[in-house]
Amino acid sequence: MGRYQKHIFICTNERPENHPKGCCSRKGSENLKSLFKDELKAQGMLSIVRPNAAGCLDACEHGAVVVIYPEAVWYGHVKESDVSEIIKEHIIGGKAVERLKIADPKYTSGSLIEPVTIKK
Amino acid sequence: MGRYQKHIFICTNERPENHPKGCCSRKGSENLKSLFKDELKAQGMLSIVRPNAAGCLDACEHGAVVVIYPEAVWYGHVKESDVSEIIKEHIIGGKAVERLKIADPKYTSGSLIEPVTIKK
Repeated sequence: MGRYQKHIFICTNERPENHPKGCCSRKGSENLKSLFKDELKAQGMLSIVRPNAAGCLDACEHGAVVVIYPEAVWYGHVKESDVSEIIKEHIIGGKAVERLKIADPKYTSGSLIEPVTIKK
Repeated sequence: MGRYQKHIFICTNERPENHPKGCCSRKGSENLKSLFKDELKAQGMLSIVRPNAAGCLDACEHGAVVVIYPEAVWYGHVKESDVSEIIKEHIIGGKAVERLKIADPKYTSGSLIEPVTIKK
């Protein structure tokens, strides 16, 4: 399954304050990354699920943006209060959090989500 | 197939000059990212294949590191002269560049590589 069972990329790109595109960094994405890290660590999953900073994912209008591989599920307007749900439902449960998925069909992946396998 | 047929993450993490782990940035990864972008653009593939900066991918000893999703193929010690080969063989041809794959089996993914589909 590769180095990580899930690789969570969180856009932390930063643009100047009045840039028309905005940026994920000014929508709290650095905190999102920290929260993912803290929660995954607390649940003993950091060795199999990696939260990773990413440069611009070119989905600026949907920021803060998170994409999870290998299934290529894109989440938009992600808030700190959403992190626990993404971990519980998507990472552990294998079900996308539908209300957070970017609705534009070009972001839709048909790939199955495999729930993580945690060795006891 | 999701927003991108291939999503190429290039670690551009930078550490202080004498840090024992080293870093991909000081091994030329910013240039790698630019080269991927230039070559993919020249071949008309930037809308379906995205080269993306990434924070530390935690494979520092193999830097400069590149991971390609959705297939989770990890390449190490990637040099500017390798970019064309990765695009030709992996992205277009659907075959991993074996000599560049990180040999440590924990990085090995069993996933199939789908060659990109370029609409004419």
